[in-house]
Amino acid sequence: MENRKFLLFLMDGVGDRPIHELNEKTPLEAAKTPTMDKLAQIGITGHLHTIGRGITPGSDTAHLALFGYNPYDVYTGRGPFEAAGTDLPVKPGDIAFRTNMATIKDEIIVDRRAGRISKGTVEIEEALKNITIEDVETIFKLGIDHRAALVLRGPGLASDVTGNDPKIENKKPKSIIGTSPEAEKTARILKQYIRQASEIMETLEINQKRIDDNKLPANYLLVRGAGKAPHLESFQTKYGITADCVAGGGLYKGVASICGMKINNNHKGTGGVPTDVPSKVKAAMKSLERSQFVFLHVKGTDNFGHDNKPIQKMEFIDEIDRAIEPILDLLPETLICITGDHSTPCVMKDHSSDPLPVLMVGEGVRPDQVTEFGERPTMRGGLGHMLGQEVISTMLGLAGRVHKFGA
Amino acid sequence: MENRKFLLFLMDGVGDRPIHELNEKTPLEAAKTPTMDKLAQIGITGHLHTIGRGITPGSDTAHLALFGYNPYDVYTGRGPFEAAGTDLPVKPGDIAFRTNMATIKDEIIVDRRAGRISKGTVEIEEALKNITIEDVETIFKLGIDHRAALVLRGPGLASDVTGNDPKIENKKPKSIIGTSPEAEKTARILKQYIRQASEIMETLEINQKRIDDNKLPANYLLVRGAGKAPHLESFQTKYGITADCVAGGGLYKGVASICGMKINNNHKGTGGVPTDVPSKVKAAMKSLERSQFVFLHVKGTDNFGHDNKPIQKMEFIDEIDRAIEPILDLLPETLICITGDHSTPCVMKDHSSDPLPVLMVGEGVRPDQVTEFGERPTMRGGLGHMLGQEVISTMLGLAGRVHKFGA
Repeated sequence: MENRKFLLFLMDGVGDRPIHELNEKTPLEAAKTPTMDKLAQIGITGHLHTIGRGITPGSDTAHLALFGYNPYDVYTGRGPFEAAGTDLPVKPGDIAFRTNMATIKDEIIVDRRAGRISKGTVEIEEALKNITIEDVETIFKLGIDHRAALVLRGPGLASDVTGNDPKIENKKPKSIIGTSPEAEKTARILKQYIRQASEIMETLEINQKRIDDNKLPANYLLVRGAGKAPHLESFQTKYGITADCVAGGGLYKGVASICGMKINNNHKGTGGVPTDVPSKVKAAMKSLERSQFVFLHVKGTDNFGHDNKPIQKMEFIDEIDRAIEPILDLLPETLICITGDHSTPCVMKDHSSDPLPVLMVGEGVRPDQVTEFGERPTMRGGLGHMLGQEVISTMLGLAGRVHKFGA
Repeated sequence: MENRKFLLFLMDGVGDRPIHELNEKTPLEAAKTPTMDKLAQIGITGHLHTIGRGITPGSDTAHLALFGYNPYDVYTGRGPFEAAGTDLPVKPGDIAFRTNMATIKDEIIVDRRAGRISKGTVEIEEALKNITIEDVETIFKLGIDHRAALVLRGPGLASDVTGNDPKIENKKPKSIIGTSPEAEKTARILKQYIRQASEIMETLEINQKRIDDNKLPANYLLVRGAGKAPHLESFQTKYGITADCVAGGGLYKGVASICGMKINNNHKGTGGVPTDVPSKVKAAMKSLERSQFVFLHVKGTDNFGHDNKPIQKMEFIDEIDRAIEPILDLLPETLICITGDHSTPCVMKDHSSDPLPVLMVGEGVRPDQVTEFGERPTMRGGLGHMLGQEVISTMLGLAGRVHKFGA
């Protein structure tokens, strides 16, 4: 059993509700999924409450739970996970923020995305390097387009600070406030950093050029999602196995990275739609050669839920099912789990607390009588109703990889 | 989704076990319940463990759990909930007791209910007003017949005091003892209060008249069920919705009232049997016009369980099913949950730890394949096995009314 491999395949926001135009089926139920159905037939299924019943998970907290960490213990905000997803080497205790480069004029935010700036931003990243305020080091790292991550590193910092993003244009930035006495220093440093960064950004060539080209300059930073990077026991220490992550979106790579997984970027997945699912599946199968555990994440199902596009969600699931056909070859040696991180019902255009289907298949599994992978067929599956934090230990247990408690 | 309404309909002690004279069916399974069965067909069902598996709930703890409060954190005794049910305005920190007016003669309790006294007791309530002992205020409030509630309000009080009710007649009252050092003061005050109250009661006209009429005087107070009124986050703060309670029994109204629900007494329910279920259903539907959440409680099912009367229990469920037919008109906008607070199997003549059926129906629900509302059909329902504390959050989640944890 020492050599068993594990594949956790996650379709983001896959869970849904009965939809009239799909003949009262959910997108997953209505999709053509011969591979998933076959896996359901030879595997065991159930319903998953990622964090708990009646709790609507965020993307960050859901993934922490699925990797076996209690989000109530380790989560303070999305910042550190987004930062880690930009390859910024986040350390435990860092205070991190999601950041937009924005345009300010006469103290008013005229564009929250600086005209969706995408080119030449390396000059900004370079210019904001090595700013130290009091005894606090700052790190600014570009993400995609106008997005970036900001980290404050130093003694006496806390994550209870509000952001300055007014969320809509033509407003002043909001005041940054430390909401606990412990966060006063953090708020002070952050305010000064944003002032100083803005002064530096005003002087940069890229902005002079943008103004000349009649484009909006990137002369201000909006921050949100303050969080303290947790000290997590690494995945390898926790479970005794090495792990790879194949994902497109920064957040998912960030959570995986903070948990100690290696990130395999050798694929053409986009973290959205359209994407290239087959290249991700191929990357995951490659990753299984070097790591015992592979987490494979596909995002698009969630996007179609947020946009209330049930037919596209269904068709994207068709596409996923075709793409994952090669994983059948991994059986029965590899223990495969297919699930999601939460439901994103089209009708709600947002995450919900509805449980979602989960399926496990591979040697050692006791197959149940479920023959289709969908919300309703799996209601009666042999796994019953389980929690996100139980998923990996259940997979390992099926492979005889969990330690005996007691003697 | 902001305007969704919620109806939680509870049949007290409805759960039961197979009964030979009902052809090995439970009373709920044997009853004619076309409305509940219809709701099961279009809804999702499961089994409910109100407090936890293998835990036999009391009526008070079961209702606290169902309203989403952890009884292990907030419950010390039944007193405060009974007191609140008599409209006594209980405050957090109050020590409250269930009280009987009794008859004492030569230091022996000759009748625990003072001849089931029912008339003229207002004189007693008046006479016991405004007794202050040391720095502790006392409040005495009549309930039904010989029953009353007693509250001690002041600094340094605790609920770890034993009552004085000998439970059987022709015994001395039991000694009141503070079972923790913190409760010494409470025990001292309570003993003195009972002595003082007894002296006052002896002098009242009503008792002189009762003696003249050859009736037993109400000249002593028996107290039991000491509890400290908890400080509960109100239902409205906790869930962001207003709530009404329609119930007959004082305890249920008391729990609801301490949780911050408004009590709608505009019905002819009795809190027992016979009762007028249709008038309660009508009141609940009226309550739904002013409040977003309505708790509707029917008690009689429990009484028939305690009395081991399975056929009457079944027939009362027939009656309930006929009475609730109008709630079908509330669908699908209103999210309806039907369940109980615990099982009261006839054969046990008491509460048991057996789980009980639960059903949710309304827009957003993923229907399962269960077609009847009963203990056995719902065993395989799509909700699986859930806990009392998860009921309301699950209802709110179905209506998109729970906050996201994380981002």
